[in-house]
This record gives sequence, structure tokens and C-alpha cells, in this order.
Amino acid sequence: MAPDKIASRLASQVAALLAEHEHRLVLAESCTAGLISATLAEVPGISSLFCGSCVVYRDRTKIQWLGVDPTMLQRWSAESQQATSAIAQGVLQRTAEATLALGITGHLGPDAPADQDGRIFLAVWARESGRLTEVAAVQEELVTTARVERQREAVTQALSLLKHCLE
Amino acid sequence: MAPDKIASRLASQVAALLAEHEHRLVLAESCTAGLISATLAEVPGISSLFCGSCVVYRDRTKIQWLGVDPTMLQRWSAESQQATSAIAQGVLQRTAEATLALGITGHLGPDAPADQDGRIFLAVWARESGRLTEVAAVQEELVTTARVERQREAVTQALSLLKHCLE
Repeated sequence: MAPDKIASRLASQVAALLAEHEHRLVLAESCTAGLISATLAEVPGISSLFCGSCVVYRDRTKIQWLGVDPTMLQRWSAESQQATSAIAQGVLQRTAEATLALGITGHLGPDAPADQDGRIFLAVWARESGRLTEVAAVQEELVTTARVERQREAVTQALSLLKHCLE
Repeated sequence: MAPDKIASRLASQVAALLAEHEHRLVLAESCTAGLISATLAEVPGISSLFCGSCVVYRDRTKIQWLGVDPTMLQRWSAESQQATSAIAQGVLQRTAEATLALGITGHLGPDAPADQDGRIFLAVWARESGRLTEVAAVQEELVTTARVERQREAVTQALSLLKHCLE
């Protein structure tokens, strides 16, 4: 899978903004499964600005790695704004060096519930003076329909949101 | 066939073998930064066979997320067979559902030490009857030279090793 050119350009812009604002990023990815991280890692020298990504592809991984509350997952589902905020907050709490976190979940299909097919959730959390705050919570409907294209579209959406939050 | 297509085909083969042998996989990725995970996630239904990936891009992330010993990292460096075994073992220990783990580290450049440029390390650990065992420890020299192509080549190497271990 090749991250596309738009995503690569956004990754360079996000890297420049992280450096400018002295932020260090960490990710919690569900539906994109590491592709936001891999796209950022195309930028040489990114390791000073980017801690890593928890690709939490199963509920138990979200619970065990990021301390997500299982009753919340049952109540709201793993593809929800609540779950997305929880993984973003969880990964920021568990990464002392990081000052900014993005979480993403969503239904890329196939076999997603019809009313949720192609819907993604994004959340951005920041650490300021030791306190964690949610700075963005966004829901998007993807325009593409195939699974692999949707992974890429979701990456572009996530990098665009990070750029917007950093500007 | 483009390298991406080779990786996608290997991902489908690895998914089929995981299902056949009733294994559930988890990853610890440094140099590939989530691209092995994203390639596996192209396969529909993979979430029953794939827990996720810890993309540990900085030393402190390896230490904080996976319990890697900082003195070991200092002694052997973060790009070494020892560090690779440690992240693979660490992610398997921290993922109760997983029975198989692959770890990968390496120097993709630019600015890598000349004698280590393009060298990657891979380790595979398995859980059998509750006990963790290293089943493969491999060092490879990448033939490509550009950073992004090297990320992709490393993904193909990793999926090939997983396929070999599962066959």
C-alpha cells in the first residue's frame, strides 16, 4: 500500500508545524491501522517529533494497551466519538514525551452497518502545563467506497485535521 | 507486479495461514512505522486474526510502552537484534489475546551510519502453552536505497518471514 501524494505533502506540512510549535505527536489508530503513522514516517528526521502509534485493531487491544473502559465500548461501540476520544486520551496519558495525540476509528467496510458505512471519528488531545484537554472532536463521511481507498482517504482527513489544529 | 501488490498478496497469504493455524498476530514496528499493519489491514475480516501494532518510533516509546530495558538499548542500540527481540517479546507479553508477534527495527536512512545503512532486524515470538519462545531472529540488507522504497521493501521482508514461520 502506497500512501498517496496528497497525504505525503500533508505529512511534511504537519512535521514542519510540529517543529514550529514544539509539539511531539503520538497516535492511536483503529481503522487506518498504522497508515497515518507510516505516512508521517516518510518525512526524514520525523523521529524527533513523532513518538509512535498504537494501532488498536481489536476491542481487547484498546482496553489492554490504552486503558479504555470496556463498558463504554459496549455502550457506544468501538466506532464512536466516545471511543475515539478515549483512545486519543489514553495514548497521550501513556506517552510522557508526547504533547499532542490524534485518535481515529471508523467503519471502512465491508460488512459495516449500512447507516455507519464509511463514517470515521477523529479526536485530538493536547497536553498543556501537564493537563490533558480535547482540542478537536470530528465526524466525517468518506466519499470513497473501497476499503483500501477509504484507508487512504481517512489518512488525508486525519493529517488535514492535525494541520488545522496546529495552524 | 509493483512491490505494493507483492505485499498485498503476502498479506492475504499470511491472513489465511493465521486462520489455518489458529494464531492471532501482534506487531511491534520501528522502521516500518505501521506499514506492515496497514498492509495486513487491507484484508477484509483481518480483525479476528490481528490485534494491532505498537509503532515504537522513539527509544522512550519502546521503554514506556513495551518495557524495553534502557541499558540494553544503550548497549546494543535501538537498531539491533537484541532490541528487535525485546520489542517483539514485549508486545506479545502485553497482548493477552495474541499468540504470535513480529518485531522489526532498522536503519532506513538518511543519516544512518554507513555500515548499518539499509540493514533491518526481524524477530518472531510465539506463545505456546502460556510460554513465550523466539522462533526466528533474522538480519537482512535492503536492496533499495530511498527511504520510502525501503519502508515497502522491509514490509515485504516482514510478511515473507511471517509466512515462512507459519508454513
